[in-house]
Amino acid sequence: MSKSMGLYGQYRERMRRIADLRNANAVLQWDQETYLPPKGAPLRGQQIATLSEAAHELFIDEKLGALLEELASAADLGEDEKANVRLTMEDYQKLKKFTPAFVRQLSLASSKAFHAWVEARKSNSFAPFQEPLAAMVQLKREEANILGYQQHCYDALLHEHDKGSTTAQLDRIFGELRKPLKEILAEILKQPAPDTSFLHQFFNKDTQWNFGVEVLKKMGYDFEAGRQDISEHPFTISFSSKDVRITTRIQENDFCHMLWSCIHEGGHALYEQGLRVSEYGLPLGEACSYSIHESQSRIWENNIGRSRAFWNHFYPLLQAQFPQQFDPVSMPDFYRAINEVKPSLVRTEADELTYHFHVMIRYELEKKLLEGSILTADIPSYWNEAYRENLGVVPPDLRQGCLQDVHWSHGSFGYFSTYSTGSLYAAQFEAAMKNDLGNLGELIEQADFEPIHKWLNSRIYQFGRRFTSEELCNKTSGKPLQIEYFAQYLRGKWLPH
Amino acid sequence: MSKSMGLYGQYRERMRRIADLRNANAVLQWDQETYLPPKGAPLRGQQIATLSEAAHELFIDEKLGALLEELASAADLGEDEKANVRLTMEDYQKLKKFTPAFVRQLSLASSKAFHAWVEARKSNSFAPFQEPLAAMVQLKREEANILGYQQHCYDALLHEHDKGSTTAQLDRIFGELRKPLKEILAEILKQPAPDTSFLHQFFNKDTQWNFGVEVLKKMGYDFEAGRQDISEHPFTISFSSKDVRITTRIQENDFCHMLWSCIHEGGHALYEQGLRVSEYGLPLGEACSYSIHESQSRIWENNIGRSRAFWNHFYPLLQAQFPQQFDPVSMPDFYRAINEVKPSLVRTEADELTYHFHVMIRYELEKKLLEGSILTADIPSYWNEAYRENLGVVPPDLRQGCLQDVHWSHGSFGYFSTYSTGSLYAAQFEAAMKNDLGNLGELIEQADFEPIHKWLNSRIYQFGRRFTSEELCNKTSGKPLQIEYFAQYLRGKWLPH
Repeated sequence: MSKSMGLYGQYRERMRRIADLRNANAVLQWDQETYLPPKGAPLRGQQIATLSEAAHELFIDEKLGALLEELASAADLGEDEKANVRLTMEDYQKLKKFTPAFVRQLSLASSKAFHAWVEARKSNSFAPFQEPLAAMVQLKREEANILGYQQHCYDALLHEHDKGSTTAQLDRIFGELRKPLKEILAEILKQPAPDTSFLHQFFNKDTQWNFGVEVLKKMGYDFEAGRQDISEHPFTISFSSKDVRITTRIQENDFCHMLWSCIHEGGHALYEQGLRVSEYGLPLGEACSYSIHESQSRIWENNIGRSRAFWNHFYPLLQAQFPQQFDPVSMPDFYRAINEVKPSLVRTEADELTYHFHVMIRYELEKKLLEGSILTADIPSYWNEAYRENLGVVPPDLRQGCLQDVHWSHGSFGYFSTYSTGSLYAAQFEAAMKNDLGNLGELIEQADFEPIHKWLNSRIYQFGRRFTSEELCNKTSGKPLQIEYFAQYLRGKWLPH
Repeated sequence: MSKSMGLYGQYRERMRRIADLRNANAVLQWDQETYLPPKGAPLRGQQIATLSEAAHELFIDEKLGALLEELASAADLGEDEKANVRLTMEDYQKLKKFTPAFVRQLSLASSKAFHAWVEARKSNSFAPFQEPLAAMVQLKREEANILGYQQHCYDALLHEHDKGSTTAQLDRIFGELRKPLKEILAEILKQPAPDTSFLHQFFNKDTQWNFGVEVLKKMGYDFEAGRQDISEHPFTISFSSKDVRITTRIQENDFCHMLWSCIHEGGHALYEQGLRVSEYGLPLGEACSYSIHESQSRIWENNIGRSRAFWNHFYPLLQAQFPQQFDPVSMPDFYRAINEVKPSLVRTEADELTYHFHVMIRYELEKKLLEGSILTADIPSYWNEAYRENLGVVPPDLRQGCLQDVHWSHGSFGYFSTYSTGSLYAAQFEAAMKNDLGNLGELIEQADFEPIHKWLNSRIYQFGRRFTSEELCNKTSGKPLQIEYFAQYLRGKWLPH
């Protein structure tokens, strides 16, 4: 073994240990959302904080820094090894910038803001949230300064969720996207609205659960390397690519909640299960970015899961499970119902077209808050005006308005835009996949997802964090991210000739 | 704040951190036994090992040692604080004795012995287990030497499970116990055996589960500070006294499995839920010993849970759940069936009287193995002869013979005897409780367990590890441990006049 490989082994061992602590912490978080008894919550919060600190301390250990320095100048490492070292060095240098005092301050501010947000929602009043949120915004500004940026302070936070992402890039993309979205939406709203009432009948919970599990199995989610449980908000969490768990929520009077959460989380989970276990704890064993992760949930949820081909296969199976509810409903009527487009107030319940107005509103708002051109006190009126202007709806209360998302209270600024770029990447990947596989619709119609897995694996999963979202997009589709694929996808779906 | 209280705060903070890591690890273990998908097992094993190491490293940190030194000579600490410091110092000095190399060696040997044990059971052959077990015995001898002992090397291992416990004490106790056990057993076997066939009808799983939960609630197990799940082997595990979980197993053709595991684990869990949360991570917030823990499961399972008074309350409720199965069975017949005494081969299925022969056989065998007066190769013949002599039964195969317990493969030597001393303590505590509360049977008959909880709390739970088992017994019952209470209990149950 060369000296470099010996050092690499030491580096790898340190990273494995850090990953073990982080993944153990993820188990505690999963348990917190699924099975934790109520009185256990306060001490669980403390246990999670302790594990975070322990993992952080291991990561910023100067011995790791010294190892990385030595490895960075080693000439005889392979490509994978070099990429891991380079990316870990970036993470190391970034985390080193944060003093323990700042991390604690952020954590306290987040805890305070979260409770204030809960309080504000309860009383339908923005007042309790205003000050704590302002303190959070101030800290995020400081964070941006610590991280550093070239043009706009918001760039530093965007970069955290999607390396290389900037306001310049997003201003352009959202600017371009707005026009076709408005046009297509106007066209759709001229057509009669579909009947969706049959989606709100009574659907037995167990039957829903079983149908969701069947869909997940067909999608290729490996239940031997994961499991599904119930939680308040559906999520995907990974403890290694051999244990990737998802959760769902079931409503007996709304079949769609369970269905779309299964497919959406299933898409996230396929990505995590597809990461290389040999790179456990290393950047090449981690997902590329929030945007690319979201592209994987959305390509399954929307591009595949809301397609005619998909339901040509699954609708008869669904009818067999719910004959009373669905036997009277034709496949075209079902398809139209699950693809209803309708401007609405709440982001998480929005259709795949108007969804992006919700994102753009939040993106603009965050940018303005960060640069200080509006204050937290301005949020309610800004929000309502933006919704009126973009979607023609005005929230009747704050819970359905500017208090609907938990993100800001957690200090998650720069997150929302990845939901939109995720959709854009999904459309661009779908086009590339079609190009490569040809008969995509036929495969989906036969629920023959194996070629799709192979494609996603060879074009996306296997690289881990080696490329940025933009690089991966170029590599996979031959072009940088552009809105035209998504616009084409929308037109193809809603404006067929 | 005095200087000592400042130091005590630092000590407490370190202990809290260690407890957070250990409890996080317990969550990983709980998950491993309940919900872990199969492919997640190898990396989970690694994550658990990493957390164990991290907690161990924090514990043997010399800064903790220095703090303890300073605190040990502080005069102005309260009684609780002094006890915590004294007991932590004992733990610290003990753990310091083990080199990382020895700990790793033990862990490897245990892993090897466990797999060999599984292999041996599969092939019903002792050969694969013989060498790995011999290696384990040798390591346990070394461990005893590292820990130190006065008379017998086995004492060091007994002490690990029950501080102060020695072969001299156990030889005396088991020597005394053997005689009344034999006499009472002989008397019982003269009587006609009860009919137990009705316990082996079909019992719906959900109805069993619900009945078990009802019993647990009545016992006072707090489902807001714990939960029950299904696992292969029932166990109790604590992540803090506000999150104490139990598991059970349900067999549809044997009602008793679920029932006794619920009550047994419920007894363990009441103890853990009763520990002081203010002493989280400190010795006074931990259970006294394996023996006392077992006394708490057994006092509920046997002294209370198999009593006439208990079933005078619960049998009508049970009949209401399983009318077809139990309406034809009278309460006296049911009571006799659940208290059947019958020599048998497998410890975990033994009745509460013959159980102790199983323990005594293992105790003698472990002692002889440790001192080297028999070798692992001798185990099968020694075992069969001991069963023939003590219980009049001879195992038809090794799975029902000397390969039935997992303990030795894990390196758990000195554990089995606590199962018996647990029963002895339970009987002695029950007598003390009767003395204090007077109308114990009446309370049980009304399922009015509140006074029992209060008694257990004030006499046992609240002290944590402040006293040894022996000291606690003296304090609670006014006498050292003696077999006469248990013998009386057995006579009262099976030889009534």
